[in-house]
Amino acid sequence: MDLDRSPLAQPFPAIPPIAGVTPRIARAGYKNWGRCDLTFVEVAPGTTVAGVFTRNVCCSSEVELGREQVRLGKARALVVNAGNSNAFTGYRGRDAVETIMAQVARHLDCEPSEVFVSSTGVIGVPLPKDKAQAGVEAALNAPECSWEEAAATIGTTDTFNKGALATAVVGGTTVTIGGIIKGSGMIAPDMATMLGYIFTDAAVDPGFLQECLSDANHDTFSCITVDGDTSTSDTVLAFATGKAGNAPLASFDDAGADAFAAAIADVCRQLAHLVVRDGEGAQKFIEIAVTGATSDASARRVGLAIANSPLVKTAIAGEDANWGRVVMAVGKAGEPADRDTLSIGFGGTWCAKEGLPLADYDEAPVAAHLKGREISIEVDLGLGEGRATVWTCDLTHGYISINADYRS
Amino acid sequence: MDLDRSPLAQPFPAIPPIAGVTPRIARAGYKNWGRCDLTFVEVAPGTTVAGVFTRNVCCSSEVELGREQVRLGKARALVVNAGNSNAFTGYRGRDAVETIMAQVARHLDCEPSEVFVSSTGVIGVPLPKDKAQAGVEAALNAPECSWEEAAATIGTTDTFNKGALATAVVGGTTVTIGGIIKGSGMIAPDMATMLGYIFTDAAVDPGFLQECLSDANHDTFSCITVDGDTSTSDTVLAFATGKAGNAPLASFDDAGADAFAAAIADVCRQLAHLVVRDGEGAQKFIEIAVTGATSDASARRVGLAIANSPLVKTAIAGEDANWGRVVMAVGKAGEPADRDTLSIGFGGTWCAKEGLPLADYDEAPVAAHLKGREISIEVDLGLGEGRATVWTCDLTHGYISINADYRS
Repeated sequence: MDLDRSPLAQPFPAIPPIAGVTPRIARAGYKNWGRCDLTFVEVAPGTTVAGVFTRNVCCSSEVELGREQVRLGKARALVVNAGNSNAFTGYRGRDAVETIMAQVARHLDCEPSEVFVSSTGVIGVPLPKDKAQAGVEAALNAPECSWEEAAATIGTTDTFNKGALATAVVGGTTVTIGGIIKGSGMIAPDMATMLGYIFTDAAVDPGFLQECLSDANHDTFSCITVDGDTSTSDTVLAFATGKAGNAPLASFDDAGADAFAAAIADVCRQLAHLVVRDGEGAQKFIEIAVTGATSDASARRVGLAIANSPLVKTAIAGEDANWGRVVMAVGKAGEPADRDTLSIGFGGTWCAKEGLPLADYDEAPVAAHLKGREISIEVDLGLGEGRATVWTCDLTHGYISINADYRS
Repeated sequence: MDLDRSPLAQPFPAIPPIAGVTPRIARAGYKNWGRCDLTFVEVAPGTTVAGVFTRNVCCSSEVELGREQVRLGKARALVVNAGNSNAFTGYRGRDAVETIMAQVARHLDCEPSEVFVSSTGVIGVPLPKDKAQAGVEAALNAPECSWEEAAATIGTTDTFNKGALATAVVGGTTVTIGGIIKGSGMIAPDMATMLGYIFTDAAVDPGFLQECLSDANHDTFSCITVDGDTSTSDTVLAFATGKAGNAPLASFDDAGADAFAAAIADVCRQLAHLVVRDGEGAQKFIEIAVTGATSDASARRVGLAIANSPLVKTAIAGEDANWGRVVMAVGKAGEPADRDTLSIGFGGTWCAKEGLPLADYDEAPVAAHLKGREISIEVDLGLGEGRATVWTCDLTHGYISINADYRS
């Protein structure tokens, strides 16, 4: 299936080499295709690592193992397989992952627990061990590749390569943070998963790196949705090589810690938005800002109820200022809301305030806003100080074509 | 917008006149159309009533009032407006409903609280009081109509008329239960809502009628979904005129009470299935049976997570035996599940058992099953005795066309 490049695509940023990080790619041949499908990233001895993972209880062996490995906080390599998610494959799937970990550990003379593996693609087919081993061997001997080549190689049904870049000054030292991500729906057709990887030359204790990543995840990756379907393999890992030479960051009390955390959050936000921009069939990028909720968590759940509503998403696809569907989605969210304090707007123009359509509501600016690519929906619940912003895309014929017309 | 008749449509049953119930229809002209859009059903003095309503917190005045009226347990009339849901219309919307209630109460010499009003259609436009009053006046003077005419008049984007019939023997007396319903998605494009009405000539105390209806609702209307979007106006009311002359049913200890409750459940199940069969864009009717859950409630939530998954629904639309998407939906449901005890089948053929694809899995019978109109998905969680069955339809280009290509 050839997919057109998303109209919401953005150019790949000029991510420079990051000290202590060496990406390489190879072809394992997980599917019958000519492209590279195995990404190998070596990180320098002493690299710390943090991660966040899917909450899907039917998760893959990669996710189960990754959760344990992150607790140890040390990394030397990352291997990403594209074309087979290895999820729901039982002991055979786990064996394939452990084989890759051992193979790389022998090569780098490190612990297998320092080798992180992710896989994305069809569910229910054990990762072929022979192809994986040959692919890893080829990658170990491949030349260093560009960040855009690595981003392309982790992708499956993605229609454009996705990367993000930020810098921060930490104790007088400028550190660089680069990230790549794949994803085009929480699950793409028979090809699963959002996988994101962030690399920095900063020196960061693993506990603090995890704190920064978890905080950023809460407001970025956990606030996007394409179709509400949570993959069995979603993973975001952050690696910090320490090669920038800053005094290691261990807590928010350290100089530059705030700047570093903000830069991590910035990269996470960029990457999260890119996944939405490549959402299956997406024609419009939608930001939903919820205010006046009883708590931030409640605001986020209301935002996601709107973002996951097929009727809201199809209304935006149809450029229809159908704010009644937003009312419906707020009301079904299962969160505190009061019809008579609820206000709804599009693109900064209020349509309804405090439970009533505005008497002087002028649909013209709203209609003009909805014709654009970047849509905003504002919801004020009028109850408290809780707020959250979530992001999604519209629901179009393209989503159906990708997921129904295509056969596995 | 002209919609083709659903390929899953079923013929309207031969519901006989029900003693003590007189339906009439008229044209209020809520929209610029030639059809009747106001249904008036008079029920005999002494009729008891029960109801279940949407849990959407942004519900309409009709729902708010209906909840209070049902507690009193007495009914003399039902008025259903089609073309305007009167939801999110504040005090003006409530005033319109109270005006209708007062008008009918004067005519029938009853309490306004005995007059039930429902409305379905666009959100955010107050029901025009003048049109409602003229329409009610016309209906009061209209001849009795057939059940199919009443079913057609409560409909909005429905593509076929929906009714159900059952009988039960209560203390030696045969009682008749007839029902009509509208709905084609929890919300149709700018036209909201599932509305269902059940009429019986049985004599039933309102408390017991409510118990029967609530029990039936739990396993029928609460187990269907088209798009997961819960309307602001969903309502099911049951009216019992007592004209059959049976000794009034007051509890399950009474002779015939079990048969009556089963017949009510039967009618509710028929009506619920008809709504799914007219789901927007539906090409296939899907039954999802979940067993082995830790509780029945948990099984139902797992079933609804599968039924609401866009990726499962598009896989069925594509006749694709993509059981990995069912695994994903089970895992994201937020309910107890264990990958390694999970089994999944289609049409009675297991694809995966206890966490592994079946080694001798033959896709041929599954592929043949998926080409049909009536699809079943079996999920065994392997944890306990909890079970539930839910129903949905596939997600097709038709859904997008109805909800995005159409403008309000």
